[in-house]
Amino acid sequence: MTHFACDYAEGAHESVLRRLLETNLEQTVGYGEDAYCDSARDLIRDLCQDDSLDVHFLVGGTQTNTTVIAAALRPHQGVIAAASGHINVHETGAIEATGHKVLSVPSQDGKLSALEVRRVYDAHWQDETREHMVQPGMVYLSQPTENGTLYSLAELTDLWETCQDLGLLLYIDGARLGYGLMSPACDMTLPELAHRCDAFSIGGTKQGILFGEALVLAHPALKRDFRYHIKQRGGLLAKGRLLGLQFCAILEDGLYFELSRHADRLALELRRAFEERGYEMLYDSHTNQQYPILPDGLLEKLAKDFAFAFWTKPDDAHTAVRVCTSWATEEQAVKDLICALDRLDGT
Amino acid sequence: MTHFACDYAEGAHESVLRRLLETNLEQTVGYGEDAYCDSARDLIRDLCQDDSLDVHFLVGGTQTNTTVIAAALRPHQGVIAAASGHINVHETGAIEATGHKVLSVPSQDGKLSALEVRRVYDAHWQDETREHMVQPGMVYLSQPTENGTLYSLAELTDLWETCQDLGLLLYIDGARLGYGLMSPACDMTLPELAHRCDAFSIGGTKQGILFGEALVLAHPALKRDFRYHIKQRGGLLAKGRLLGLQFCAILEDGLYFELSRHADRLALELRRAFEERGYEMLYDSHTNQQYPILPDGLLEKLAKDFAFAFWTKPDDAHTAVRVCTSWATEEQAVKDLICALDRLDGT
Amino acid sequence: MTHFACDYAEGAHESVLRRLLETNLEQTVGYGEDAYCDSARDLIRDLCQDDSLDVHFLVGGTQTNTTVIAAALRPHQGVIAAASGHINVHETGAIEATGHKVLSVPSQDGKLSALEVRRVYDAHWQDETREHMVQPGMVYLSQPTENGTLYSLAELTDLWETCQDLGLLLYIDGARLGYGLMSPACDMTLPELAHRCDAFSIGGTKQGILFGEALVLAHPALKRDFRYHIKQRGGLLAKGRLLGLQFCAILEDGLYFELSRHADRLALELRRAFEERGYEMLYDSHTNQQYPILPDGLLEKLAKDFAFAFWTKPDDAHTAVRVCTSWATEEQAVKDLICALDRLDGT
Amino acid sequence: MTHFACDYAEGAHESVLRRLLETNLEQTVGYGEDAYCDSARDLIRDLCQDDSLDVHFLVGGTQTNTTVIAAALRPHQGVIAAASGHINVHETGAIEATGHKVLSVPSQDGKLSALEVRRVYDAHWQDETREHMVQPGMVYLSQPTENGTLYSLAELTDLWETCQDLGLLLYIDGARLGYGLMSPACDMTLPELAHRCDAFSIGGTKQGILFGEALVLAHPALKRDFRYHIKQRGGLLAKGRLLGLQFCAILEDGLYFELSRHADRLALELRRAFEERGYEMLYDSHTNQQYPILPDGLLEKLAKDFAFAFWTKPDDAHTAVRVCTSWATEEQAVKDLICALDRLDGT
Repeated sequence: MTHFACDYAEGAHESVLRRLLETNLEQTVGYGEDAYCDSARDLIRDLCQDDSLDVHFLVGGTQTNTTVIAAALRPHQGVIAAASGHINVHETGAIEATGHKVLSVPSQDGKLSALEVRRVYDAHWQDETREHMVQPGMVYLSQPTENGTLYSLAELTDLWETCQDLGLLLYIDGARLGYGLMSPACDMTLPELAHRCDAFSIGGTKQGILFGEALVLAHPALKRDFRYHIKQRGGLLAKGRLLGLQFCAILEDGLYFELSRHADRLALELRRAFEERGYEMLYDSHTNQQYPILPDGLLEKLAKDFAFAFWTKPDDAHTAVRVCTSWATEEQAVKDLICALDRLDGT
Repeated sequence: MTHFACDYAEGAHESVLRRLLETNLEQTVGYGEDAYCDSARDLIRDLCQDDSLDVHFLVGGTQTNTTVIAAALRPHQGVIAAASGHINVHETGAIEATGHKVLSVPSQDGKLSALEVRRVYDAHWQDETREHMVQPGMVYLSQPTENGTLYSLAELTDLWETCQDLGLLLYIDGARLGYGLMSPACDMTLPELAHRCDAFSIGGTKQGILFGEALVLAHPALKRDFRYHIKQRGGLLAKGRLLGLQFCAILEDGLYFELSRHADRLALELRRAFEERGYEMLYDSHTNQQYPILPDGLLEKLAKDFAFAFWTKPDDAHTAVRVCTSWATEEQAVKDLICALDRLDGT
Repeated sequence: MTHFACDYAEGAHESVLRRLLETNLEQTVGYGEDAYCDSARDLIRDLCQDDSLDVHFLVGGTQTNTTVIAAALRPHQGVIAAASGHINVHETGAIEATGHKVLSVPSQDGKLSALEVRRVYDAHWQDETREHMVQPGMVYLSQPTENGTLYSLAELTDLWETCQDLGLLLYIDGARLGYGLMSPACDMTLPELAHRCDAFSIGGTKQGILFGEALVLAHPALKRDFRYHIKQRGGLLAKGRLLGLQFCAILEDGLYFELSRHADRLALELRRAFEERGYEMLYDSHTNQQYPILPDGLLEKLAKDFAFAFWTKPDDAHTAVRVCTSWATEEQAVKDLICALDRLDGT
Repeated sequence: MTHFACDYAEGAHESVLRRLLETNLEQTVGYGEDAYCDSARDLIRDLCQDDSLDVHFLVGGTQTNTTVIAAALRPHQGVIAAASGHINVHETGAIEATGHKVLSVPSQDGKLSALEVRRVYDAHWQDETREHMVQPGMVYLSQPTENGTLYSLAELTDLWETCQDLGLLLYIDGARLGYGLMSPACDMTLPELAHRCDAFSIGGTKQGILFGEALVLAHPALKRDFRYHIKQRGGLLAKGRLLGLQFCAILEDGLYFELSRHADRLALELRRAFEERGYEMLYDSHTNQQYPILPDGLLEKLAKDFAFAFWTKPDDAHTAVRVCTSWATEEQAVKDLICALDRLDGT
């Protein structure tokens, strides 16, 4: 059985494990105040070309999103997100559990536009009874989105300028940031992204390390006392160095980007294979997550050897699945899947 | 200037005030444990034909909704509501502030159907990753809805049986319950409603008293320790008897229902007047709130003498407004408005 | 049976009721944006000799405390309070329900000192692991305290300067503020108090009106968007004018202070009577709440005609009770109690 | 520099790392539903001699405590804990952030007694105004406590029976459970502990693995839907198998207990050394955390080669520090510290 269901089926890249082994018996202070975390912070600031950024390391994505959003909003404020945004559907109401509404906006492709953000903002402020409604305080994007789609530099710039204009904070969930930035369809660099938001995350868990997300804070008000928030939300890892070490291992020498490019390339190979065989894609993804719509008969046969994630049923005879590649996906696995497509289709 | 903007522009019916005056210098225990509150509780149990109901008195509607919903749900659960439901749009995220997501369902007329409830429930439980999503725990309805529309007895029965079947609690927001029950279009009685939900409120503020909502609890699990929840959410009035006294005054001798019928009659008179003059109604309301779509020119002229609440702009030349009657609306005010319609239209 | 158990056993002073009657059928806008609320706001600003203050009207004390404290604190911050403070013991964890810890300080007399505040602050900031602990963000005082004791002007000045120095907000719960300010033992004026805190409340419920607390905000950061917080916490009264009208009625012509002085005078008469008969007082109160320690036998006999609030049992043979006077207490009731003391003692 | 400051200064025992290496490129499902987690669950059930237990794996201690406590309590309930309990002082108000008060009880040695629990319970329920106060819903213990002290089997049995009698849930924080159970002063077994509480944790982070806590649930009401709570609080690790694998590695063949015994033995050797040299201990600890009170002059000299954690200053000339051993502490390090004591004392 070969897993294409998700991008967290394996452990970590060998250079990450090696680093953990090499340093295992060293003694360091805890809670992320060690030299390895500092090095990883420096690496990230360098990659972003911005020395003023604060960088924190957390264990998981839901934790990261919740911590930064709850730290940023006042009690009467909510966060604008695409209806398909991870915080709106797949975090068991973690944002609401901290007291804040997700102001969801319907979206076909998983993206939000500057126009929609402005519309939500205006609808709020133009209403005379605005005090009876949740005030928009922040915008949440994911790059790439949960659908694998990407914001262009122009779109992000537009969103950023709109947020600046309206006094909204902009946060980018980068759980799969590498797969986004390395996509051939992506026209922005990491520094360009870093300078168009108030905070963003750099996902590690799905990008080659065992676990860990880097949270990058640009806005001064967010930086203040942030470690308290991490601790309160249960995200301050005792052996914090494990996060620093892993990010060092993956960010030095560009391994993070190399592995991302690898996954994107294989994913796009699969997309091409599906499309060449006449299968439509649910979303126009250029990253490591692809969403082919397959005949149920074919899917059933494929399922004997390959694991996908069920996504939706567009009609009675077809199913859309998520097919993921990752840093760990082998060329051979992709070839096997394409062969199977040819072998099983029409049988 | 005559107010048709809302149903809380005046104080209270004179018999309510009289009761407060008569008892003013009596000394009673506080926090709703006095004999007047007990009498009001008995009155409500009698009207509902159910001795097993618990009744609490709170000051306002947002407080009432928040207290009962937060008391009922476990942390990972949310409440299903029509997107236009009061808790979803007009309570400044009070439900979310207690940690719970409102699982909103788009609705044209402000109502939820049993089918939609079942769909939300099934979508949750059929998903393999359900633990990543908020679990539906309760259904919130308003009778009448925020749009003035009404659930029929058959619809409510269907919802109630569905909730029973699925293990969901059913709560009915009755901020304008009297206007609902007394509408000529309503086919249910108070006992019929009371036996088809786990909890419901009987609005007082908009129904002839100074302030106050009665919260009626039918489900045993909700009854337990409920006064703690009221206190924690800031709703335990020191001079609790003021609520008991007012509900006694309005519920004895059927005044509550008489005043409701009065308001509905005048509202439907206005509806007829609008329709006869060719104005469409935004919603098919048979209660005290009417939503005519008026030409902007006419509206501007009317606005010199009459206050309405802005609702929405269906197109560039028209505006839908809310026109409310209440227990306090005078026949003459309605006549004046109709006259003005005739006088100003086409001028 | 004569009630001395609390100061909310009756309704409201007749001039308050008269005002409600006179204006009952007037139509006004809701939610505290009417002219009566504006007048009451002006009255309070005048009494405080400060035009820059924001004034909001809420229904109850727990609601008022919770709303202002939750609006002021960031998620990782807590509020310093005497262990006997109302928010720490008698609000069913309402502050915690909004996510914040009450940092309680043991206190013999119900008061906090500047020194203790500084000690809590220093203990936090000097600890290297401070991020693992709740950060002090605000100080909560009650004037008079729950024990009837009073802060002197020097003590309050010291607390205020300390808070200013340490960057802590200072909030004063004035649920019984009139009884405090009018006490012969009080050496501060309302403007003096108003200029030594960031926010404070002026209690109405226990001071002669039916219900209602005025919340006065001095700190600019607290003023912003405050009405959203009131709405979210369930405190925005639909017929908000009821609050404005009542505060107008009680604050015009100094009635508020006159009634407070009356209650204090009677309470101190009772204190003197207890002390002259050899009964000790649990606290050194100079306001309307007195706490005599009575032999159980005497108390049992008194209890046939007089209601007190049980407070504590200092030993097996004695009980401390709360004896309250109020704006509504009659001279004769006090005389009757003193007579009863003489008649029943030693029998 | 040798670290005695904490028990999380190193990585993990080599057999833990080996297990991660061996399985690194295996593909498994995520979120703790893999076979390794199942094996670890079975191991724990076996060690507890109870097949009915539910076992979940979380990343950190604060997360574990918060998740189980927030899942267990209704909104108006709080958790009774010793004032020195980790949840009361060192989790940045994480419990309060979920809406619940920690009902703290002063404690000299870090322990709670059954008598004190009953006293808190009775004080609540005997008060007529109990609804104005937080209702006790759960008891939190740590075994060993934050001070290194231990509950005896008799004490725990007494607490458990009291909780059963009063309808309170009992949760035991076992962040250092191994060090507790393996102490020569401990008279209870793991199954005995497991049968005297509703939930408890088995700490991994401080006990030889990289990170991870096992949460064991005995009470049926806690088991229901528990994975939702873990996800909502940010604790559902994507590569959940990392936790299962580590717990397998450490629990198989008794390594967990062997390493704990090692740490305890060295800690008690240090205690003996301190005491033989005339230094008092702040607490009577028989586990891996020792709290000697040292002259400041000596401490300053020791600090050049050894890192301790500052604890408190009992007087101007002395400092109490925490001296921790762990699974990773080497015999030589202990010998070095004892030598240094002899060399530096009196110099």
